Amino acid sequence: MVSKEMYELGAKRSVIRDLFEYGKQKAAIVGKENIFDFSIGNPTVPAPECVKESIIKLLKTKKSDEIHGYTSAQGDFEVRKNIADYMNGKFNCQLKAENFYMTCGAAASLSITLKALTVSSEDEFIIIAPYFPEYRVFIKNAGAKVIAVPADPEDFQIQVNLLEKAIDFHTRGIIINSPNNPSGVVYSEKTLRSLAGLLKRKSKEYKKALYLISDEPYREIVYDGIQVPYIPDYYENTIICYSYSKSLSLPGERIGYILIPSFVENARDVYTAVCGAGRSLGYVCAPSLFQRVIMQCLGKTSDIALYDSNRKLLYDGLNKMGYRCVRPDGAFYLFVRSLEENAVDFSENAKKFNLLIVPSDDFGCPGYVRISYCVDPEMIKRSFYAFQKLKDLYQSG
Amino acid sequence: MVSKEMYELGAKRSVIRDLFEYGKQKAAIVGKENIFDFSIGNPTVPAPECVKESIIKLLKTKKSDEIHGYTSAQGDFEVRKNIADYMNGKFNCQLKAENFYMTCGAAASLSITLKALTVSSEDEFIIIAPYFPEYRVFIKNAGAKVIAVPADPEDFQIQVNLLEKAIDFHTRGIIINSPNNPSGVVYSEKTLRSLAGLLKRKSKEYKKALYLISDEPYREIVYDGIQVPYIPDYYENTIICYSYSKSLSLPGERIGYILIPSFVENARDVYTAVCGAGRSLGYVCAPSLFQRVIMQCLGKTSDIALYDSNRKLLYDGLNKMGYRCVRPDGAFYLFVRSLEENAVDFSENAKKFNLLIVPSDDFGCPGYVRISYCVDPEMIKRSFYAFQKLKDLYQSG
Repeated sequence: MVSKEMYELGAKRSVIRDLFEYGKQKAAIVGKENIFDFSIGNPTVPAPECVKESIIKLLKTKKSDEIHGYTSAQGDFEVRKNIADYMNGKFNCQLKAENFYMTCGAAASLSITLKALTVSSEDEFIIIAPYFPEYRVFIKNAGAKVIAVPADPEDFQIQVNLLEKAIDFHTRGIIINSPNNPSGVVYSEKTLRSLAGLLKRKSKEYKKALYLISDEPYREIVYDGIQVPYIPDYYENTIICYSYSKSLSLPGERIGYILIPSFVENARDVYTAVCGAGRSLGYVCAPSLFQRVIMQCLGKTSDIALYDSNRKLLYDGLNKMGYRCVRPDGAFYLFVRSLEENAVDFSENAKKFNLLIVPSDDFGCPGYVRISYCVDPEMIKRSFYAFQKLKDLYQSG
Repeated sequence: MVSKEMYELGAKRSVIRDLFEYGKQKAAIVGKENIFDFSIGNPTVPAPECVKESIIKLLKTKKSDEIHGYTSAQGDFEVRKNIADYMNGKFNCQLKAENFYMTCGAAASLSITLKALTVSSEDEFIIIAPYFPEYRVFIKNAGAKVIAVPADPEDFQIQVNLLEKAIDFHTRGIIINSPNNPSGVVYSEKTLRSLAGLLKRKSKEYKKALYLISDEPYREIVYDGIQVPYIPDYYENTIICYSYSKSLSLPGERIGYILIPSFVENARDVYTAVCGAGRSLGYVCAPSLFQRVIMQCLGKTSDIALYDSNRKLLYDGLNKMGYRCVRPDGAFYLFVRSLEENAVDFSENAKKFNLLIVPSDDFGCPGYVRISYCVDPEMIKRSFYAFQKLKDLYQSG
């Protein structure tokens, strides 16, 4: 009586959300301080002060309809102009307001872009495993097919030789995500040059544009002075899907953008199709107050140092115990080897010690768990005892 | 190279947006005070004070992640509980938090509901002409077919006998919109009883649920003490799509809900499919700050009296000049007979006097113009001269 596909999507909550809800219920029984919830990527570091200040200033100085009224569907012109200017200063590029389409966050950015680019049901989008599980949902909604290519298990960089084999005539685009959720890896210059070379070669071979869709909500969440390369510098046919959810700790506010540089093949057609896809999916405009807020906060971020100290604390602690994981350069996740082949069983065992860690199966890369460290550092300290017990369980067994 | 369908949707701006943009350009030449822009439904009456007050209070008393963090996909529980309680008090019903799914406004409410209900590409949704043009876009996005049934040209109530002929085995649901955009009509008790009777009979005949989708962004924008009936009291299989855009003058903030009462057939399945459809379309959650804001403003509205005085001013003024239109009971539009058969040409002629009025063709009901009166009353007064000139043009011609 209802759409079977939508019913199943609604009934099968993501494994992340499932653990998160389990944690809330268990906390009610054993006490919140005894639950070690590393499940969800909900930033705990507060939004920077400029967010609060700019909201209050806007409310006090602007007329109601100037703040809360419809903006144009692509977003307020002044907002987009200011983002363009900021990006031009940061990346030495030549962007204009017309290159930006404001969205309700990264999920909207991706859904809209994929819908705009999908021409036929034979179209394929390639994703690199481990990947954010919702990519599958958004590609399916656009009416295209998902092709997953595994990253290098040593360092989680792209295996360009494997990617090459996956590209065929039906490939419309490749989604990349650096800094990566869940691995925390930042793609190196070497990876990007190699990727760009491949895509240029393959575009020529198939005589069609291959779009690189760069999903960048973690662009500013990087450590040890690492710089995240500006992808269009490496490959022209790049569309950036951005969100302020993580950089400004505003995940619930749903604010981000799609950036289509002018040198993208058929850039104006892509932009027009993006406008159409946004309209088709029911996005009238991005939330108007927060369009203005992010304009006032360009270049600002939440206090990344807090995530960095969490990263060190957890990485060092788990390493000492003998857990294995690649040291992350960005985002706020550790991607740790499961102590048994089946990560779902491993995650279940972890629950015995009230340790909530996400099995990697839905990320398309079995045998790991994702540990989100955008949490209270005190919880990390308390959790080591549980991590040790979990380790002991496997050593004694 | 991009989706043709999305490109066309992006390239063909709605006629309303087209006029609106034309007005902005023309204003730059002849001066804003000489343009009479009745094109767009962007509320001019400010949001009530409770909006500003509750935002500032939330910012000052709550932690950043309590305001800006992800809520659950269906919306914050407390918010939904409070809306349910408010509705129970107002309509004497028995709603719970679980009946509500918070959305990014009415367009999202409709897109998600239609996607959740569409089972096959043979499915049909019936809309009553004149209708909001985007209904066609959202139904198409869901993969279903649009069937339009004309309203009674005398009073714009539903012609239930015509609707009866349009319902067949493929009908999944009917979208109604009362108070109506563009006609301003509020469906009478008589209409609703007759509609409910028909739908019950037809559900039995075809042995399947027929869903009534009630799009109610103008529920509170009514005049002369009129009460908008609570549709589920008349017909159980009613799903309400609501938005705070108009009642609280927050159109840019994208905040609304889907209400699925428990007595709807397969209510839990419909709700689950709605969750799935929201996920599929890329809606992660409704904007978190404004979820809390509308909770603090339940029962409040912008100052409707201002729209009412505009309504009287414009209706009386145009009537005196000999324009013909049904007196609207709600919303903020007059739906006026075109002075020639082709309303597109009529709207073009109106432009000669810098009068921007929307031809009704895209509303599925040719021969009219929609005049939006959520505008500055001074503009209405200045516009009468132009309306008179337009009338003279036709009398002299």
